[in-house]
Amino acid sequence: MDATQTCDIGIVGLGVMGENLALNLERNGFAVAGFDLSETRRASFVARTAGKRALAARSLAELVAGLKSPRRLLLMVPAGAAVDAVIGDLKPLLAAGDVVIDGGNTLFSDTQRRMLGLQATGILYVGAGVSGGEEGALLGPSLMPGGDARAWPLIQPMLQAIAARADDGAPCCEWMGPGGAGHFVKMVHNGIEYADMQIICEAYWLMQQVLGMGAGEMSAVFARWNEGELSSYLVGITADILARPDAETGQPLVDVILDTAQQKGTGKWASQSALDLGVTTPTIADAVFARTVSAAKEERVAAADLLQGPKRAFTGDRAAFVEQIRRALLAAKICAYAQGFQLMRAADAEYQWGLPFATIASVWRAGCIIRARLLEDIRSAYARHPQLANLLVDEGFAAVMAQSQQDLREVVAAAALHGAAAPAVMSALAYYDAYRSPRLPANLLQAQRDYFGAHTYQRTDRAGKFHTKWTG
Amino acid sequence: MDATQTCDIGIVGLGVMGENLALNLERNGFAVAGFDLSETRRASFVARTAGKRALAARSLAELVAGLKSPRRLLLMVPAGAAVDAVIGDLKPLLAAGDVVIDGGNTLFSDTQRRMLGLQATGILYVGAGVSGGEEGALLGPSLMPGGDARAWPLIQPMLQAIAARADDGAPCCEWMGPGGAGHFVKMVHNGIEYADMQIICEAYWLMQQVLGMGAGEMSAVFARWNEGELSSYLVGITADILARPDAETGQPLVDVILDTAQQKGTGKWASQSALDLGVTTPTIADAVFARTVSAAKEERVAAADLLQGPKRAFTGDRAAFVEQIRRALLAAKICAYAQGFQLMRAADAEYQWGLPFATIASVWRAGCIIRARLLEDIRSAYARHPQLANLLVDEGFAAVMAQSQQDLREVVAAAALHGAAAPAVMSALAYYDAYRSPRLPANLLQAQRDYFGAHTYQRTDRAGKFHTKWTG
Repeated sequence: MDATQTCDIGIVGLGVMGENLALNLERNGFAVAGFDLSETRRASFVARTAGKRALAARSLAELVAGLKSPRRLLLMVPAGAAVDAVIGDLKPLLAAGDVVIDGGNTLFSDTQRRMLGLQATGILYVGAGVSGGEEGALLGPSLMPGGDARAWPLIQPMLQAIAARADDGAPCCEWMGPGGAGHFVKMVHNGIEYADMQIICEAYWLMQQVLGMGAGEMSAVFARWNEGELSSYLVGITADILARPDAETGQPLVDVILDTAQQKGTGKWASQSALDLGVTTPTIADAVFARTVSAAKEERVAAADLLQGPKRAFTGDRAAFVEQIRRALLAAKICAYAQGFQLMRAADAEYQWGLPFATIASVWRAGCIIRARLLEDIRSAYARHPQLANLLVDEGFAAVMAQSQQDLREVVAAAALHGAAAPAVMSALAYYDAYRSPRLPANLLQAQRDYFGAHTYQRTDRAGKFHTKWTG
Repeated sequence: MDATQTCDIGIVGLGVMGENLALNLERNGFAVAGFDLSETRRASFVARTAGKRALAARSLAELVAGLKSPRRLLLMVPAGAAVDAVIGDLKPLLAAGDVVIDGGNTLFSDTQRRMLGLQATGILYVGAGVSGGEEGALLGPSLMPGGDARAWPLIQPMLQAIAARADDGAPCCEWMGPGGAGHFVKMVHNGIEYADMQIICEAYWLMQQVLGMGAGEMSAVFARWNEGELSSYLVGITADILARPDAETGQPLVDVILDTAQQKGTGKWASQSALDLGVTTPTIADAVFARTVSAAKEERVAAADLLQGPKRAFTGDRAAFVEQIRRALLAAKICAYAQGFQLMRAADAEYQWGLPFATIASVWRAGCIIRARLLEDIRSAYARHPQLANLLVDEGFAAVMAQSQQDLREVVAAAALHGAAAPAVMSALAYYDAYRSPRLPANLLQAQRDYFGAHTYQRTDRAGKFHTKWTG
């Protein structure tokens, strides 16, 4: 296809995500123009769109010239300086009313800054979270757009057409709010994803370390769990992974994969944002720290010879313990989601975005990495109580926690006594126990602060700030 | 005193820290000039320095005019914009070779930036961590200066004269390194302080929640602990605090103090820096999160009615459990220190500061908030092995952990089963168990990342990066 002003959308950056989104758009009836600096990627785009309504532009100017007005552009370039560079190059080519969407994993404050920077030009800027990986991009991702609200009617039909659909038919794409709202929601999605993955890994670890179960046996367990309350994409792929043999050695592939996890930074951002906003998200942070300690493989191997652990054999009922792990996983996962929603709630209060919590859960029900049966329950909880103080105090989730908290405790105790590191599951329990404690030992802590730093304290029996001269 | 070019040092900012440092300097034989924008503070300074070698300047210009050359100035103003403002005002008044020391709790990257910003002027910039609170400032703080190394000979005699002294007579003030090294070390000091305080609070909480002990009884326990391995400023003041009656009600004062802890940000910075540098510091982060959840007092009170906990009475040997808590506290504290030193080790690798780890432990032995008998052991460990991979693998600390790890496990299990939130103690154990694990479940995690994002993985049996087509 070679024409001017005939394409519905232009995509800058034809890596696997950009290319797959282009094919998804085209399949849904939209003519797509694509551009990438890399000739290889442009050639791949040409090959994969042969015979389709797609234009492979040789320059940004050609890309822009190929678009209907108002022009709509989707940037699928690496987050950071590349986004600023593309925006700088696009600016002279665009007009007021055109829409630029950044679909990368961009830090929300960068999106906020870029939107404000473009306001004088009349270009409408959108930061859109895109989740679902390669497959989601091609077949239906979960999309979390936010930014200049005037852009939404111009992009809604396209984005909702390509998005995944939940079981009730709702598209997994809704407007998240102004400024950096969309990218913030995506960052929290990824923080929850980090926690969910780590909790699953700890369940696997406990079955392996405490019960001595093998990959095949555990695959069956995860497959069974995937039929019930825990049904989710991540539990499903865990069952798949554990069932996979290594073509070379015949062993379970998972057993020959090196135990060092990498990260790309969104879990780190979520944790740092939580610290900035004063939100308690230990399970998300522990998931990040679990990756960093895994990366210190050589140190761990050396330390293993020097640091003692317990010597303890499991003597209980194996099937009952597996079921306890299942319920602990569920409880820990709810705590991780609760932390993520608390983080969004605090950001919403800080930035006045008006985040639609039920809608956020709704667009996470399909397409994205954390899609799970649980999300319909979260959607209902926030639909019932839009101002819910914490997911844990929704009557439905409080009931699930009531059924599973004892198992969570016993699994934490078993992990501690057997020496199996389970930081995320442990911090989920500590979070639950702190959040349900009308009192905590912070009275002593605040007294310490007053003792050495005259930081003052409050009293339980009347208002005001007090200082005690503790010494002399 | 009213004279020109007679004072050894000028202090900008006469809050309680600045004023006390001035008195400390004067007592040690240095003539001090002081300035503060607040007339009240200037008046207080005049009153407290009456008859002493001190000049109360009415302007920055008068302050500078009162100083011997090369001039030495110590800024004790709130971290942030105020520091930049004072530097801006001072710049035209100073000459090449003059020294400006920021003694506030400044973010190390700000210190780095300011030092570079002053380089063209020839003004020598120093960021100095100052720990010990009001009393330390007056009687002998721990000082952690870093920045432009040419400044060190000009300030060393003064700073070492006013610093605390360790039992072996060494002054608790040594040069930390270039750039932001001093403020980074102080930030880590504060991160460890957060963790240490929280771990002590959890020990208190377990005695109270599991054993039902009262403040007076616990005061006696902490006082006894303060005689042994746990001997430290924070354990000592905890014993004091728990013994203190409330003058109004006659109850233990700690029982009428509201359980909401505040924070000033250095623990948050330490956690955020660890996340940036990819260092595993969960116990420091959990100490920050323990403060944030404590601040959500109203939410916690409301949640308490809705969220179920365990119903469990303690049936073991009470004295034995108190002793287990003591050893768990010791083990958790060692893990927190290990995390703090890992954070400095990573920063040292990143910024090439050449941090003197044994010296850092040495200057923390007295004067500062985390001073503790343990620090002499840490000093020895790094003196023996300057390149120690982790404090935990020093033979001395490995032996202490070997003696206490089983108690740490049983205390974590008890906290879990009794529903007493103990996030920092739990994460210390998880840290220990992860660090001593030659394998961790990150193989599964990396497989998940490869499954949905084609992020690739490494193998245990040969080098390279691998990707599996998991589906289809």
